[in-house]
Amino acid sequence: MKTKFLVAALSLVMAGGAFAQVKPEDAIKYRQSGYAFMAWNMGRIKMNVEGGQYNKDEVIKAANAIQAVANSGMGSLYLPGTDKGKGWEESRAKANIWTEQEKLGKAAMAFNKEANELAKVAQTGDAAAVGAQLGKVGGTCKGCHDDFKAKR
Amino acid sequence: MKTKFLVAALSLVMAGGAFAQVKPEDAIKYRQSGYAFMAWNMGRIKMNVEGGQYNKDEVIKAANAIQAVANSGMGSLYLPGTDKGKGWEESRAKANIWTEQEKLGKAAMAFNKEANELAKVAQTGDAAAVGAQLGKVGGTCKGCHDDFKAKR
Repeated sequence: MKTKFLVAALSLVMAGGAFAQVKPEDAIKYRQSGYAFMAWNMGRIKMNVEGGQYNKDEVIKAANAIQAVANSGMGSLYLPGTDKGKGWEESRAKANIWTEQEKLGKAAMAFNKEANELAKVAQTGDAAAVGAQLGKVGGTCKGCHDDFKAKR
Repeated sequence: MKTKFLVAALSLVMAGGAFAQVKPEDAIKYRQSGYAFMAWNMGRIKMNVEGGQYNKDEVIKAANAIQAVANSGMGSLYLPGTDKGKGWEESRAKANIWTEQEKLGKAAMAFNKEANELAKVAQTGDAAAVGAQLGKVGGTCKGCHDDFKAKR
């Protein structure tokens, strides 16, 4: 009873409240949000590595955020047909996302691997090692964007 | 040398590439992204709890994502003056965010506490307990929105 009440109350909090099925425009918005949120955290780590003031705690938080987003299962947000459509903005997902699944899977796994490693390296507080690992993460981002994200 | 090269290469990946300081419109976009990404994950957990098909692994991923975003330090994205301004959309942050810091801090800490607990409870795979804890997280979301987020 209590659980049902609390879960019902939750609907007030969440945009729309209709989550029985994720709508295509919401799926696009959520994935754009995940990438933008990671971009912030990549940028924060970069600032720490390059800015001359390394804050170990901030880098750990940022790396943990990237890791959790990377491992959240965003693949489920690529609903069929959502290469077209508008979330926060027009989707730039290319149609080959749905036809080159094996290649995509490899790109996603490479990203996850490097993101997991970044979270580990962040714990050391070694700015140079974090910078090197951040570069590896960024390389997997770029690799996937080159193949599966439309240019503006 | 290698580190510098890799970090420099990273700039290609990140939107804009200028992260020396976060621009107000980007700060708004990043925080809107964080909340939207959490909304997706709240919704996923809700579906698992209510949908009749409970996927423990998916709930863990979603709870970990909420936890990492909650603990990422999004407070730094509330740059002075960014109650006005457009990220993905017009900011709905109320001006009292910058004047009622103690109250805001309590609201933020309550949210973090419940989000951390949700990640723990998710590990048990107990759907009812997860539902109850999701309700507690949602309650802290709503509490903060009531006080610090403008209605549409």
